Amino acid sequence: MCGQCGHIAYSNPKIVVGSVVAHEGRILLCLRAIDPRKGFWTLPAGFLEEHETPEAGARREAREEARAEIALDALLAVCAVPHISQVQLMYRGRFAAPGFSPGPESLEVRLFAWNKIPWNELAFPSVKWALEHYNQSRDLGFFAPFSNPV
Amino acid sequence: MCGQCGHIAYSNPKIVVGSVVAHEGRILLCLRAIDPRKGFWTLPAGFLEEHETPEAGARREAREEARAEIALDALLAVCAVPHISQVQLMYRGRFAAPGFSPGPESLEVRLFAWNKIPWNELAFPSVKWALEHYNQSRDLGFFAPFSNPV
Repeated sequence: MCGQCGHIAYSNPKIVVGSVVAHEGRILLCLRAIDPRKGFWTLPAGFLEEHETPEAGARREAREEARAEIALDALLAVCAVPHISQVQLMYRGRFAAPGFSPGPESLEVRLFAWNKIPWNELAFPSVKWALEHYNQSRDLGFFAPFSNPV
Repeated sequence: MCGQCGHIAYSNPKIVVGSVVAHEGRILLCLRAIDPRKGFWTLPAGFLEEHETPEAGARREAREEARAEIALDALLAVCAVPHISQVQLMYRGRFAAPGFSPGPESLEVRLFAWNKIPWNELAFPSVKWALEHYNQSRDLGFFAPFSNPV
């Protein structure tokens, strides 16, 4: 409720959309140029916008943060982060066109082989979850999306 | 933006959670007691609340609208309704305890055999989608969730 005029604006959970983009076995990560967690590695992801489908939102985030045009092939995971009222929809993706480079929210964008992923420099727990979900789904064409690790 | 005080409240897409609950081959539908679409049949579903997981929200809606305690066994579909900025997460469910009855938002709650579903008296297109998704997933243990029909 607005303290000045009494208007009530309802507060709802927010939807985060993002992707694990793989290319020849390596995975696209972005080094955050902004807080929170500036200087840590993350997946292209962010808040879904009004009048946007989750798939379009995930593609937009890859475009904004990694200057990458991607195509999505599966819904990888639906995770809930109830203490911050977030629902995260993570997709599995690949490049739809060649090339990538840092967008304004990224210092660097790089493809990492699985055994080179900087596990101790990931920005958020949900990045680790999504990478693990990707790895478990790697050889699966169709699968039920993962959810929060137990 | 509030017209009186200038406060900006960001508007985000909303998450709807609901379920297709089946019992001995019949499907739970609720006759809406409230507008919009009062007097039409719907599935137990509604807006996800703050600090709630989607699964907990779907169970709460079944409790509120059909006085039913349910368990969820699969994410049935993730559908986008971008023109009203909604993302709908529909689950497949079953009764976790016996009994159901109309909650305050329902005039009647009933189990329908598949060939008795009142297709012409459904409240929303997304109810029809979810029922069709349920029917297609009926014999599947694990599957990729459906999305909007093409």
